[in-house]
Amino acid sequence: LEAEAFFQAGFRDIFIACPQASRGAIEKIAGLVEKGAELIVGFDHHEQIVLLEQAAEAISRRISVRLEIDSGHHRCGISSVEEIVKIAREVRGSGGLELEGIYTHAGHVYGSTGLEQTRRIAKEEGEALVRASRVLAEAGVRVRSLSAGSTPTHRWVAEVEGVTELRPGNYVFFDAMQVGLGVVGLERCALRVMGTVLSVYEGRFVIDAGSKALGLDKGAHGMEGLRGHGIMVGGHNWEISRLSEEQGIVEVLPGEGYPKVGESIEIVPNHACVVANLGGGMWMRRGERMERVSLVGRR
Amino acid sequence: LEAEAFFQAGFRDIFIACPQASRGAIEKIAGLVEKGAELIVGFDHHEQIVLLEQAAEAISRRISVRLEIDSGHHRCGISSVEEIVKIAREVRGSGGLELEGIYTHAGHVYGSTGLEQTRRIAKEEGEALVRASRVLAEAGVRVRSLSAGSTPTHRWVAEVEGVTELRPGNYVFFDAMQVGLGVVGLERCALRVMGTVLSVYEGRFVIDAGSKALGLDKGAHGMEGLRGHGIMVGGHNWEISRLSEEQGIVEVLPGEGYPKVGESIEIVPNHACVVANLGGGMWMRRGERMERVSLVGRR
Repeated sequence: LEAEAFFQAGFRDIFIACPQASRGAIEKIAGLVEKGAELIVGFDHHEQIVLLEQAAEAISRRISVRLEIDSGHHRCGISSVEEIVKIAREVRGSGGLELEGIYTHAGHVYGSTGLEQTRRIAKEEGEALVRASRVLAEAGVRVRSLSAGSTPTHRWVAEVEGVTELRPGNYVFFDAMQVGLGVVGLERCALRVMGTVLSVYEGRFVIDAGSKALGLDKGAHGMEGLRGHGIMVGGHNWEISRLSEEQGIVEVLPGEGYPKVGESIEIVPNHACVVANLGGGMWMRRGERMERVSLVGRR
Repeated sequence: LEAEAFFQAGFRDIFIACPQASRGAIEKIAGLVEKGAELIVGFDHHEQIVLLEQAAEAISRRISVRLEIDSGHHRCGISSVEEIVKIAREVRGSGGLELEGIYTHAGHVYGSTGLEQTRRIAKEEGEALVRASRVLAEAGVRVRSLSAGSTPTHRWVAEVEGVTELRPGNYVFFDAMQVGLGVVGLERCALRVMGTVLSVYEGRFVIDAGSKALGLDKGAHGMEGLRGHGIMVGGHNWEISRLSEEQGIVEVLPGEGYPKVGESIEIVPNHACVVANLGGGMWMRRGERMERVSLVGRR
């Protein structure tokens, strides 16, 4: 459970934005609450309530929970009015749990084909939360937090009245996917993968950055419009067309020049989140100095 | 450089089957040779020879090298007779390098659509090495090793007379890709990812194994025929149709039953190599006991 690593790193307010259903994970959550973590746990199913309640009872503490609402992504969360009211009442009826809020993740925005559509999904994301909170209020259940979350929608979902929290996780670095979606320009992408040219051939060259460095993401949920496996900085007409595990094959388009063997190549990856997870650490530029930073939760 | 981790773990004979071209990597290689590693380094370009020679000179030792031959994968390696002879003579003319052998990787076999084609690619893989060694012999250059390598071809490439070494890296575990290619049956796949059912919905359920656990591979180089993101053991009509980073969305096909929230699900991943790299460690079954093993080179 990554929450443990964050707690050990000094974080106290932690929201686990994912329904938890294994006895092991819930016991760890209870352990963190006992140690003083201000934890909020996602849920959307009766069975999770049963487990969380047992855990709360075992530590004689209340556990805060948030209900996941499905705003169109159809991964986790519920959307029917009856289900929302039923499950919220179940939590209220329990002694050990407190319904702190509701949340959603509009992950289907990664399939958006333009800013107009992105804006519409953002609006729907926020409105799904507001609608659910109204339904709950009518049933006598008041919640404090209405939490929306996705990087492409964050700017517009903030305009929906009633939303109290945003979780735009990718904004820390941004990446080629966000550039492809029109969320930001390339100059806002902070994370770079440095590759070295291993060898040069007719029509292509090979770098030492493959799927273990760049990830295979071509857009989180089937997004269109990304060319190759990352954006090569420098304006050359080069395209990372294939990835092996340790090597990237870069096509040199007609009329374009070749790099030298041993040359460094700077790449903005398609998906910064998986790259941060794959790497064993990273270097940060502070003014003129390079500093090695380690990442919370990396083994 | 992973070779360093293997050396520290006690391995002495190490073949780096990838052309090396960065000064940093080559200095590390030289350092390992100095410490007593029996290293062989892949190469296929003049510039790599220059760097390797400088390194050999700096440590006053010979460095063994192997020339990569392109047998049809078109990633690394060379195939023209003139180039092969020219670069081999260049190595011979150098004081610090020894041409120990030649090698190839028939990675395009992962695009094979049947065993007949796989067998043909295996034959071509072996014959490309034999042909290159004959060309070298005629030019007065004798090599010791003819090294072929890919898991799908290993059975048949061994039948080509002259091949001295196989590198079927995936055979340690096997995986759904090898099952899809007809190399082995599911019962030979040793690596399993254990997922937990987080929640159940109409027509789908969600597990806590996403792309960070299962990888996004759908076949190394565009292989057809894999259904979803891994094979779920147990014979249910379930398909891992989408992966988020931390979650897998499993489609429940019509007429099929649902698992319980909290239930464990056993999955044979599509690509065992990337799964081993993503995991922080693994459990091994020895008789009735489960033992935690750590992996060489993992941070």
